[in-house]
Amino acid sequence: MPKLPVSPLAPEGFPTMLPVPGVQLGTVAAGLRYKGRPDILLAVFAEGTAAAGVFTRSKMPAAPVDWSRNALAENGGRARCLLVNAGNANAFTGSAGSKAAMESAEIAATTVGCDKTEVMIASTGVIGVPFDVSSFGTHLPTIMNVLAGTNWQDAAAAISTTDTFPKGCSRTSEIDGKPVTITGIAKGSGMIAPDMATMLGFIFTDAPLTPACLQALLSETTEKSFNCTTVDGDTSTNDTILAFATGGDEIADLADPRLATYRADFMAVMMDLAHQVVRDGEGATKFVAITIEGAESDAAAKTIALSVANSPLVKTAIAGEDANWGRIVMAIGKSGEAANRDTLQIWIGDQHVAVKGMVSPHYSEETASAHMKETDIIIRADVGVGHGRATVWTCDLTHGYISINGDYRS
Amino acid sequence: MPKLPVSPLAPEGFPTMLPVPGVQLGTVAAGLRYKGRPDILLAVFAEGTAAAGVFTRSKMPAAPVDWSRNALAENGGRARCLLVNAGNANAFTGSAGSKAAMESAEIAATTVGCDKTEVMIASTGVIGVPFDVSSFGTHLPTIMNVLAGTNWQDAAAAISTTDTFPKGCSRTSEIDGKPVTITGIAKGSGMIAPDMATMLGFIFTDAPLTPACLQALLSETTEKSFNCTTVDGDTSTNDTILAFATGGDEIADLADPRLATYRADFMAVMMDLAHQVVRDGEGATKFVAITIEGAESDAAAKTIALSVANSPLVKTAIAGEDANWGRIVMAIGKSGEAANRDTLQIWIGDQHVAVKGMVSPHYSEETASAHMKETDIIIRADVGVGHGRATVWTCDLTHGYISINGDYRS
Repeated sequence: MPKLPVSPLAPEGFPTMLPVPGVQLGTVAAGLRYKGRPDILLAVFAEGTAAAGVFTRSKMPAAPVDWSRNALAENGGRARCLLVNAGNANAFTGSAGSKAAMESAEIAATTVGCDKTEVMIASTGVIGVPFDVSSFGTHLPTIMNVLAGTNWQDAAAAISTTDTFPKGCSRTSEIDGKPVTITGIAKGSGMIAPDMATMLGFIFTDAPLTPACLQALLSETTEKSFNCTTVDGDTSTNDTILAFATGGDEIADLADPRLATYRADFMAVMMDLAHQVVRDGEGATKFVAITIEGAESDAAAKTIALSVANSPLVKTAIAGEDANWGRIVMAIGKSGEAANRDTLQIWIGDQHVAVKGMVSPHYSEETASAHMKETDIIIRADVGVGHGRATVWTCDLTHGYISINGDYRS
Repeated sequence: MPKLPVSPLAPEGFPTMLPVPGVQLGTVAAGLRYKGRPDILLAVFAEGTAAAGVFTRSKMPAAPVDWSRNALAENGGRARCLLVNAGNANAFTGSAGSKAAMESAEIAATTVGCDKTEVMIASTGVIGVPFDVSSFGTHLPTIMNVLAGTNWQDAAAAISTTDTFPKGCSRTSEIDGKPVTITGIAKGSGMIAPDMATMLGFIFTDAPLTPACLQALLSETTEKSFNCTTVDGDTSTNDTILAFATGGDEIADLADPRLATYRADFMAVMMDLAHQVVRDGEGATKFVAITIEGAESDAAAKTIALSVANSPLVKTAIAGEDANWGRIVMAIGKSGEAANRDTLQIWIGDQHVAVKGMVSPHYSEETASAHMKETDIIIRADVGVGHGRATVWTCDLTHGYISINGDYRS
């Protein structure tokens, strides 16, 4: 398919990315599927680096997901390197796929000089095509010669498939008065791009966290960032978020007060990357934040918010810049979670659209429509049964999505 | 919005519809929202008619849904008439909407000469607009003057919104050697058409069934017909299926052997109507049957099948005539139900696409692609964990859907 134009929701440019002590990166253009761009990333970590992961909930996980999940469980949360390829997802490739994943890890382990369980791997690309590991034997030693702490944009490019812009975020934080860095990259353009799989995110930090503490931090922040985003509701076989901390095993408890600022900064990096993925949603022209309040629990609020965010009728209305709040009512009603029709309230932007189960007497179609013409859309509803609250982020559903996913064979 | 072209999946014409003893129909073009077409239907039933209903599971049900559900519960399953309007769904209209629903029933009861709880009502159209009952007072007496047992096509037209063809089905069956008739009409074009709500179905029969027996029959057959169809996964606030049986309270048990043939024929009418709704799905160019076998239970199989049927990536692939079985794997994996990745099998048409968790050695892209070019698409998968089985029906996701739902304000 032809190269896609850059998303109208893309940030102005790739951000300044801070190196992370103990992390070195290298890429190579192996031409696995894409030509003239890097498609293999190898990140090498200092000894003693803690690692943590959050993986797809799909019942059809790809072989690299199995590998990384099992390796982390086996070695107690350690990693010496991360190997990522774009072009072939090594998903639904049978027992040969599992073997290929293991062989990839073995080649990386030999190259870097570590145990194979200390190799995290992730793949993105076509589903169901046998995965050929033969070229890793030459490419990984080549990458070892170009390792550096600064080449983040190449790294972000190397893990991309149909992404229309590279995604990175970096900030300085502090723990116990000492500066630490959090730098991350991500990919994703819809849950799945044409024939491709996956949302990937990798976060690198020199914070002194034990593996368990890093895992708790990653799980907590993934749940409120990447797991609160949706483009089309389609969950990939390969979704993987990994975090690596190179600062040693000093802090074991996420509740440690020394981590207060750091936790917030880590969350900010995760959220920034997750939002970038939505902003690169296939065909997206609007970035939409949906907040549900007054639900039975936070989990119920999230279910309702995702029901609205995944509704094709809500998403097409947003594409059409139509303040069609009746579709929001419909999507809240179909979620299965408790909601009180007769006290439901809805806001579009600042406009109070619905009160007491009907249109607000102060509703102005003109004001609501003006908000719908903006690029960033805010929808909020109070479902009137409790104190649960959640926000999710999505994009609109446009002709662009259909063209990207349905037209490319014609 | 402009009048839509007739769906390419529409049947060749409106079928021959048999009158049902004890059922008389009339319509009027009241101009509630649409011009030059009938938009109010009144069906009048003989004394002693049994009634049964299946309603939307939405937590935001429209006022007419509340009315009909409560009336059936209150009167033990009896009806003397059915009043349906198209143009205003009387959904999310607050306490005024509930009052309007009751007043509609009262006007119909006075007109027909029955108790108000014996009036079933259903509405379809815009959400959130106050419902004006004032015109029923003149229109319903007018309809009483044109009642007949034969005007089914007008009846089907009167309950339509953005449907591109009227939907009816009729057949003769037998109970205990005596002929009985089953005649039904339905509407729906997507779960919700632009700004409109609803899938409606009404089945009329002269079978001698008690209300409880009719309810059991309707619930059983709805579950396997209308509740196994999806266009966009968006459940309406107004979805209503009602059945009316005019033959007296002779048979009380659905398991009565005299009903064997009749049950199958009733199911066939329900299925035919449900399929017609899918064939009128917004923007549809393909009619898709998805069968899941080998699931933990029939319910699990249905959940998986609906996950595939509602996946935007599967639906756009079908629109693109792309035998993209990787997306089917993805959609099975995301359903949350148990499935064995390593024994999963998939068929597209007659073609065995995947075996043992990977592409079949006999897979022919050419054969699979040839099937995808047909109008009726068959997808089947065995998820390898049990004996549960379900089939659901859907349509593809095309530029037509986006245009109908997202472009109409431009």
